[in-house]
Amino acid sequence: MTADRGHPGKGPKPGVVKTVTSLTNPIVKDIRALQQRKFRRETGRFVAEGLKLVTDAVEADWPIEILVHAEKVGAQPQVAQVAARVKARGGLILQVSEQVLGKITHRENPQMVVGVFRQKLTRLADIEPAGSTVWVALEGIKDPGNLGTVIRTVDSVGAAGVILVGDTVDPFSIETVRATMGSIFAVPIARATVAEFLAWKESFPGPVIGTHLAGAVDYRTLNYPEPMILLMGNEQSGLPQPIAAACDQLVKIPMAGKADSLNLAVSTGIMLYEIRRERLVL
Amino acid sequence: MTADRGHPGKGPKPGVVKTVTSLTNPIVKDIRALQQRKFRRETGRFVAEGLKLVTDAVEADWPIEILVHAEKVGAQPQVAQVAARVKARGGLILQVSEQVLGKITHRENPQMVVGVFRQKLTRLADIEPAGSTVWVALEGIKDPGNLGTVIRTVDSVGAAGVILVGDTVDPFSIETVRATMGSIFAVPIARATVAEFLAWKESFPGPVIGTHLAGAVDYRTLNYPEPMILLMGNEQSGLPQPIAAACDQLVKIPMAGKADSLNLAVSTGIMLYEIRRERLVL
Repeated sequence: MTADRGHPGKGPKPGVVKTVTSLTNPIVKDIRALQQRKFRRETGRFVAEGLKLVTDAVEADWPIEILVHAEKVGAQPQVAQVAARVKARGGLILQVSEQVLGKITHRENPQMVVGVFRQKLTRLADIEPAGSTVWVALEGIKDPGNLGTVIRTVDSVGAAGVILVGDTVDPFSIETVRATMGSIFAVPIARATVAEFLAWKESFPGPVIGTHLAGAVDYRTLNYPEPMILLMGNEQSGLPQPIAAACDQLVKIPMAGKADSLNLAVSTGIMLYEIRRERLVL
Repeated sequence: MTADRGHPGKGPKPGVVKTVTSLTNPIVKDIRALQQRKFRRETGRFVAEGLKLVTDAVEADWPIEILVHAEKVGAQPQVAQVAARVKARGGLILQVSEQVLGKITHRENPQMVVGVFRQKLTRLADIEPAGSTVWVALEGIKDPGNLGTVIRTVDSVGAAGVILVGDTVDPFSIETVRATMGSIFAVPIARATVAEFLAWKESFPGPVIGTHLAGAVDYRTLNYPEPMILLMGNEQSGLPQPIAAACDQLVKIPMAGKADSLNLAVSTGIMLYEIRRERLVL
């Protein structure tokens, strides 16, 4: 059981409740270090904030390692309930000061409950394209807020998941997780290099449809088959030419004003709601 | 001419080029103070970043008071050109160190060109509903990135403008302006209290269509007349009941997954592209 943990030797003991008010406490320091991508990658952990979100994740059996809460909310029934579940699964409960919570979450008005979770990624090879599914591939996405918002939209529209292609922002950064509003726990996420993605899509039974400012086809005129992959380029420059050339179809969202382009999360939302247009049921 | 300025007495002299490297220089301090909403309101000024954006604004005759640029880019033809135009109109040119630019824009890697502009707001009473127009009313919007992204989308889709209703984030904050990607200079913005908005919409010749999770009608099933007002609620709680009750129609964007709601900028984008669906031309 402890073999699952990143640092079984020096890590927290399972099923224990600790009260901590010092910023130099080693567990608090480890959690704060999760603000760095390097440390998130090394430990395979990430931080998510908010009682409802943490509760939903625990109820969905997402692996949680530490539940952190402000001392003053420890007696609240909902907090006590989720704490009991985390303890029963061998997780650590940390009661802390609000100052510590602020440092962990990098916020002046922090949430009173925070969870330290294990990261989960889906392997490209494990993606099952069967059924009526849309995967969203994001090439080189750079903004954590955009990525989180896309993950939230993928969840809202019932799409299959997200594939991060090439050099992208980390889906487990606190800003990304915050912007997902909990959908980080509901949406499968895969990662691939450009070469891996291009090789993998050859065996995918549906088309890759990319959005591109120079796309030949108005996005409203297409019938979207499923399964399919919607491929979106990055914020600065859109889809690079070699990747655009590998698409089965390039579509364009018309623009009427002086703006050069739409925000990436907005254009992904418009595309996804168009693709799922006939399938969405109230 | 100087009567147009916020502080004609102690303000910068028109048509002058100054070189400044000190963070305590009074003009630099005044520009830095524009990070505070209070100071933006008092002076009626705001800051926008980036050579292309500032150039576009100057070419569109948006009133600029100060052009700030890094000393090292002063000799670049595009910078020299926009500086000449600003000087000819009586604006101040400020050559500064990159450290000063970083402090002005609150960024570690600042843009090399920044403009201090005069705010412009449209009065509700001056809104001309004639023609084929959609106004977007945002009730209580709180997130500067969301507001900036909505302004950018309104521009992209050729909608008429934005009406901020009630207690909202400031459209001239640097984060909002940044997220508009220049559309702050293209999209008319009005402000109103809830009471003012509700009174004004009585004389507006088109319907107010609100989005609401409890909306009775699927947004895809409606024919949207123009002119019309699209009313969006705030990020936390959507449209408050009294305002929702004042709408001619409430529509709902269907949700398929576990997510509770869409991001506000995404849902506004989906609505606007639906409303303009038949009118957008590639």
